[in-house]
Amino acid sequence: MAKVLTSRSENYSQWYNDLVIKADLAENSPVRGCMIIKPYGYAIWEKMQAQLDQMFKDTGHQNAYFPLLIPKSFLSKEADHVEGFAKECAVVTHYRLKNDPNGKGLIVDPDAKLEEELIIRPTSETIIWSTYKNWIQSYRDLPILINQWANVMRWEMRTRLFLRTAEFLWQEGHTAHATKEEALVETKQMVDIYGEFAEQWMGVPVLKGHKSESERFAGALDTYCIEALMQDGKALQAGTSHFLGQNFAKAFDVKFTNKEGKEDYVWASSWGVSTRLMGALVMAHSDDNGLVLPPKLAPIQVVIIPIYRKDEELAKIAEVIDPLVAKLKAKGISVKFDDSDNRKPGWKFAQYELKGVPVRLAIGARDLENGTVELARRDTLTKETVSIEGVEDVIENLMVEIQNSIFQKALDFRAEKTTKVDTYDEFKELLESKTGFFLAHWDGTAETEAKIQAETKATIRCIPFEGDGEEGVCMVTGKPSLQRVVFAKSY
Amino acid sequence: MAKVLTSRSENYSQWYNDLVIKADLAENSPVRGCMIIKPYGYAIWEKMQAQLDQMFKDTGHQNAYFPLLIPKSFLSKEADHVEGFAKECAVVTHYRLKNDPNGKGLIVDPDAKLEEELIIRPTSETIIWSTYKNWIQSYRDLPILINQWANVMRWEMRTRLFLRTAEFLWQEGHTAHATKEEALVETKQMVDIYGEFAEQWMGVPVLKGHKSESERFAGALDTYCIEALMQDGKALQAGTSHFLGQNFAKAFDVKFTNKEGKEDYVWASSWGVSTRLMGALVMAHSDDNGLVLPPKLAPIQVVIIPIYRKDEELAKIAEVIDPLVAKLKAKGISVKFDDSDNRKPGWKFAQYELKGVPVRLAIGARDLENGTVELARRDTLTKETVSIEGVEDVIENLMVEIQNSIFQKALDFRAEKTTKVDTYDEFKELLESKTGFFLAHWDGTAETEAKIQAETKATIRCIPFEGDGEEGVCMVTGKPSLQRVVFAKSY
Repeated sequence: MAKVLTSRSENYSQWYNDLVIKADLAENSPVRGCMIIKPYGYAIWEKMQAQLDQMFKDTGHQNAYFPLLIPKSFLSKEADHVEGFAKECAVVTHYRLKNDPNGKGLIVDPDAKLEEELIIRPTSETIIWSTYKNWIQSYRDLPILINQWANVMRWEMRTRLFLRTAEFLWQEGHTAHATKEEALVETKQMVDIYGEFAEQWMGVPVLKGHKSESERFAGALDTYCIEALMQDGKALQAGTSHFLGQNFAKAFDVKFTNKEGKEDYVWASSWGVSTRLMGALVMAHSDDNGLVLPPKLAPIQVVIIPIYRKDEELAKIAEVIDPLVAKLKAKGISVKFDDSDNRKPGWKFAQYELKGVPVRLAIGARDLENGTVELARRDTLTKETVSIEGVEDVIENLMVEIQNSIFQKALDFRAEKTTKVDTYDEFKELLESKTGFFLAHWDGTAETEAKIQAETKATIRCIPFEGDGEEGVCMVTGKPSLQRVVFAKSY
Repeated sequence: MAKVLTSRSENYSQWYNDLVIKADLAENSPVRGCMIIKPYGYAIWEKMQAQLDQMFKDTGHQNAYFPLLIPKSFLSKEADHVEGFAKECAVVTHYRLKNDPNGKGLIVDPDAKLEEELIIRPTSETIIWSTYKNWIQSYRDLPILINQWANVMRWEMRTRLFLRTAEFLWQEGHTAHATKEEALVETKQMVDIYGEFAEQWMGVPVLKGHKSESERFAGALDTYCIEALMQDGKALQAGTSHFLGQNFAKAFDVKFTNKEGKEDYVWASSWGVSTRLMGALVMAHSDDNGLVLPPKLAPIQVVIIPIYRKDEELAKIAEVIDPLVAKLKAKGISVKFDDSDNRKPGWKFAQYELKGVPVRLAIGARDLENGTVELARRDTLTKETVSIEGVEDVIENLMVEIQNSIFQKALDFRAEKTTKVDTYDEFKELLESKTGFFLAHWDGTAETEAKIQAETKATIRCIPFEGDGEEGVCMVTGKPSLQRVVFAKSY
């Protein structure tokens, strides 16, 4: 069969785009920068959502919903925030269309101009903190631990399916606390949850740490992040959790009376992951044949393909397969018996490979005689013939093994692509031929960071929480540094 | 304790508004017509979503996601649709704000005007059918059975929390079929699912039937609906399913090659329910003390309140209650043991009554001695003292009994409020003093319908699928009629 995808080595970026489209994950829409998430892609996103939502609820968070539109004036209230978000955004100026009196179709009705323009939320801190003002009077009203699943919009100029789109789906947590310490604990807890989700569910190893000041969320005092490494050696920021201090409380005048009876501004965190995770999932594991999905997020975990010529043969296969399907389902494994007769087995094999189904069983006349099935693993592209008796237990174990193996492979790849660098010359030279994470000492200043970025295109991805305890000197300025930070080119 | 709600008899509309706000379901936002759904309200909506989503999936539907914004020109493509939806809508005209050079804060950047204005979706037929055009070539690509959970916006002038808001949350199904018959079966299947959900989960009895032509969805050939009766005797349309014929396929040129090799336009249905269901749920069952929630949709099904003076007493109560909580949870019953010490039991009783928790247990020192608990039902406001031994089984049965009882009560209420009317004089007279459903004969014309509405404010809520088989003559014109239709004043 002809390859349906550009290979990674040929053109990684094209491979990614091909794969997202051919595997029916998403496609571009007629609206610039906005994507259509197709059912197969959405089914993966739903699995991500379900798990994250459970993790949020297990840590005491509740979901709520705030308005899509934000009054323009709200955006100006937090000085840094406005610089970060007010600029490239969708602006609603009118609330009515009318038929053109000259017969040119629908036009904007000039009589229906809004007094104040409304912005489609790029993020919801402002509308939420304007609301929290009414909800918070005393320390008894705290903490507020709210999450929202929503669509947001940022008018990006260069978009790529899942990785950077004008509209995207995400969750945004917005919490309010009585003390700085509590807000910091929350901020850290959420980046830890993101890390756990990325590693245990997506099979994507991540570095956790602080963003440098220049990469912080607009309005935050500190931004924690998880950073993943893609197969092309570029970094992808996969989730962020922000310690907002009292910035939004001050901007929206949200005060509370503490236990001692004194008034103070409320402390805040916000945190989010988005459909960008879909891009990370695709790019971390997939190969030139298509998607490789970790079993925990695969909409179909096992596909069974019958190989037969006559309908009687299919009936005999079904006699053996139907009970197996029931056994797998009883184990909570999602399984599809694809007995459709409009496609040949070879086409089906390629199709489910493209879609990343972790395990494929094939069964034909000879297997029936021998009491066997052919079992293929998507991640390793290996096949073996196994007894059909008890294969449900083999598969159950395999789900765990594949999940672990995918993660381990990515972890090994990252180790291989992580380089310690001590001099700036070496750093610049390496960056010309090599990609990946580069661990180097930095003097902590925005000037040095900007110089490095301008000269190499690499940015500081994070300042790891767990430093190596190795003090040193900045590779550029020679000034002292307490720990290495992580540089990379990034998405 | 002072009543926190206006009573229904005093002012039904105010009672509803008070209740939605006081029970922490939702509140108005700073953005005109847009609501904030608070955690408790959202938890109920999530339960609705989970059940509906399962019912959609069980009938072969998949979720997907389409863009929030729709190019203005798309709206004009279906002639009826544009009249229904293009008029009152949020229009995005610009994609950037900038700082006013005169220092007046943020202004719309006149250089960032969109070539074509974008509309925030009021419903997604147009963007979805423009996409289906690329997905459908042959009968093999059909049916397409897609649902979307999304926010939509209609610029309503008079809004009420949940019942009519500018932005609301909903699901919209959009299906494509090879034949008219299939599309009709789908349209009917979905209104049946809505009916089953309303009755079995919300405990709200509904009438199912066709809308009259003038009440149809803009662009549909037929609209099926479920209609519920609220406690004030007004009808509420709670869900609709539309047979769209080939209208949208023609508007967006979506053709397919059928099994015989001939080209034809694709047949369509669309169907939706929204956060309006929350309004129906509140108005159907609640009383002057607060919400009455059916157990299947209650975020907390059982609350347990300890009555004690000293911490030692609470510790003894906890010894008895902790195992009970575990037993209830093991049965899948959500339970909250409210041992918070900052509120008195009386306050808690009123609070959980307001929030509609179906079952309340209270336990004090005497109960401990006697091995009993006080069990109170929210729906009937009855209390009894029962043995704590085996109370988990009593509660398990009670969940079913309360669910059924709430439905039966609403069913009895509807029966009482349903009146057969034969003459127009009687109809007009009745409508001055009485509310509810009125079953009358109608000649099937839009003229008569309009006359009745103008003179009585009553509209045809539906033409029931299951007529009574009773032919007659129109109460207004005396022309023949094959079945009675349902009139009511409505939300």
